[in-house]
Amino acid sequence: MSSTAPLTYDQAGVNYDLIDPLKIAAQRAAAATGAHLGGHGFSEVAASRGESAYVVDVGPFYLASIVECLGTKTLVADEMATLTGKSFYASIAQDTIAMAINDLITVGATPLVVQAYWAAGGSDWFGDAQRAQALVAGWKAACDTCGVAWGGGETPALAGIVADGRVDLAASCTGLINPKERLSVGDDLGPGDAIVLLASSGIHANGLSLARKLAERLPNGYLTEIAPGLSYGEGLLAPTTLYSPVTEALWKAGIVPRYSANITGHGWRKLLRHPKSVTYRIHTVPPKTAVLDFIQRQAGQDDREAYSTLNMGAGFALFVKAEDAERTAQISRDCGIDAWVAGCVEAGEKQLLIEPLNIRFGADDLALR
Amino acid sequence: MSSTAPLTYDQAGVNYDLIDPLKIAAQRAAAATGAHLGGHGFSEVAASRGESAYVVDVGPFYLASIVECLGTKTLVADEMATLTGKSFYASIAQDTIAMAINDLITVGATPLVVQAYWAAGGSDWFGDAQRAQALVAGWKAACDTCGVAWGGGETPALAGIVADGRVDLAASCTGLINPKERLSVGDDLGPGDAIVLLASSGIHANGLSLARKLAERLPNGYLTEIAPGLSYGEGLLAPTTLYSPVTEALWKAGIVPRYSANITGHGWRKLLRHPKSVTYRIHTVPPKTAVLDFIQRQAGQDDREAYSTLNMGAGFALFVKAEDAERTAQISRDCGIDAWVAGCVEAGEKQLLIEPLNIRFGADDLALR
Repeated sequence: MSSTAPLTYDQAGVNYDLIDPLKIAAQRAAAATGAHLGGHGFSEVAASRGESAYVVDVGPFYLASIVECLGTKTLVADEMATLTGKSFYASIAQDTIAMAINDLITVGATPLVVQAYWAAGGSDWFGDAQRAQALVAGWKAACDTCGVAWGGGETPALAGIVADGRVDLAASCTGLINPKERLSVGDDLGPGDAIVLLASSGIHANGLSLARKLAERLPNGYLTEIAPGLSYGEGLLAPTTLYSPVTEALWKAGIVPRYSANITGHGWRKLLRHPKSVTYRIHTVPPKTAVLDFIQRQAGQDDREAYSTLNMGAGFALFVKAEDAERTAQISRDCGIDAWVAGCVEAGEKQLLIEPLNIRFGADDLALR
Repeated sequence: MSSTAPLTYDQAGVNYDLIDPLKIAAQRAAAATGAHLGGHGFSEVAASRGESAYVVDVGPFYLASIVECLGTKTLVADEMATLTGKSFYASIAQDTIAMAINDLITVGATPLVVQAYWAAGGSDWFGDAQRAQALVAGWKAACDTCGVAWGGGETPALAGIVADGRVDLAASCTGLINPKERLSVGDDLGPGDAIVLLASSGIHANGLSLARKLAERLPNGYLTEIAPGLSYGEGLLAPTTLYSPVTEALWKAGIVPRYSANITGHGWRKLLRHPKSVTYRIHTVPPKTAVLDFIQRQAGQDDREAYSTLNMGAGFALFVKAEDAERTAQISRDCGIDAWVAGCVEAGEKQLLIEPLNIRFGADDLALR
């Protein structure tokens, strides 16, 4: 491949054809275990099986739980530490917590407890005090932002499994949907609802394989200036926005979203997440962040490709009653996160129409497992 | 080191001096986040901060959560697959779930939901259908045994972070302590209580670094016969016993343990886990399993060293009222897990006396962080 050839997400290294059979087998086996809850007097919320967090009805409220992996963003942080002498692990900590929190809140849950999973390639990894302290400080700061308790976690040294000098970061999160009316699995989603998009801070933690491949093709790599005073590496390492302050503020304001989507892997196709056959029409597209614009141009992606894999400036989608739309956006802005009333839900076939960009994604474009 | 020199756990590769400063910093930062729960109308159970699972008082019951890593046992499974052509990943799945479940139940929780964390060194890992199906089948079977719902999970491909051909396995688990009288953080633990030890199936998933080092010194490695028809590798790969059926059966029988300890890293020193100053006197020592006896002999460990790092046949300890002791052991046997009324709690300094072996561990011998 020449250094200027277009670069797709699939070329960047993740082969879903190999992973999908296992995922499907796991999902079938997992679904068969839901009945065990009956033995404890509880039951699963079956509709949550395809959602971002698993929900159990425990009587007075619903219980939601999740485990999420950061992915390969640490490889960028490690390279940038070598290039600049700075540690970016405070940001990395926020990214990791965001992966779990931003998924958990989609079902209407208030995150309560986060557990840390920091698996290093050997004991030595923990000996870098600057990096270790940044990871701890960033983890705590993210918990403070989200009002969650950091319950504990694991810090194993896994020589032979995790690569030497690397760390595999993940977070688990448990929360409650309380009161139960806050449950948001899309039952009431339908024509007439508005789509409110919340700003992302950059690439967040999806698409990093592609972003790293691009760095290899740049003469200055991660130090390439992509905006005045901003390097490519710094742009990539902007910490993922934490959206739970917005969802909590919405509840306090009396707004219960009909549905939510965390825009991660598969980019804007995630707007098609709910199984309902409805049309999502977007009339307003948020500005791309500098780093996403740079990636799109450097990878030679057209808009359709870019919006199908990256968040392109919108990190979270709230589907709300039309009359709540402007207030929803304002509440997000009051939380310091820009937001746009970007479109609406209509009767029609399952599709996403991004009108300003002339893009259509159909039901076949998102085969979430 | 000569091939017959004694081998200690520290020599086998985990350097806690490097990990501990980070752990302590993380624990302090984590403790400072517990107050966030007040903003949601809840509170943490402060005594759970030093325990195996984190507990939150959510009103009608307590919520317990945890994330746990399997460790390096997969390296044994991978080597045995090469040597025998068999996949041991059904056992490995049970091991992984056991790490989470057996910790969660120590606080009195009923495990409800397990999430899977399977991070592979690349998409290729998932392409081995025999191994993948074994992992799925074993995961489901362990959920069935414990009556938990498999909520979902993550199957990331992390080339560059997880070593090529390897997988980093972990499980998160959420449960409820319901009714709240089941909470078991040792408040009532005291002189006169009995100690009931439940049988382990073998090494479980702690001490594998040492076990792997030993394999390197054996001419026939993992294929060394350690008992008639049983290879060292097979012995190591006996799946970790799942103890939640016992704790659930105890509750149904009206027995609430005063305290519980999952005997994992630090071996029998875990019996000293609770901060109270009491003496634990053991009069009956369960039989070692074949693989633990073999490891002790091959590593040239005296009893004190062996019992300070390995479970030596006892995988879980229940501290119960003296009058419940025999019934507790019988209930465990009825669940298919051998058990012994092994000792008692006495007034006195904090120490563990294993009388048949003439071993004493003092408070200084277990500095749990």
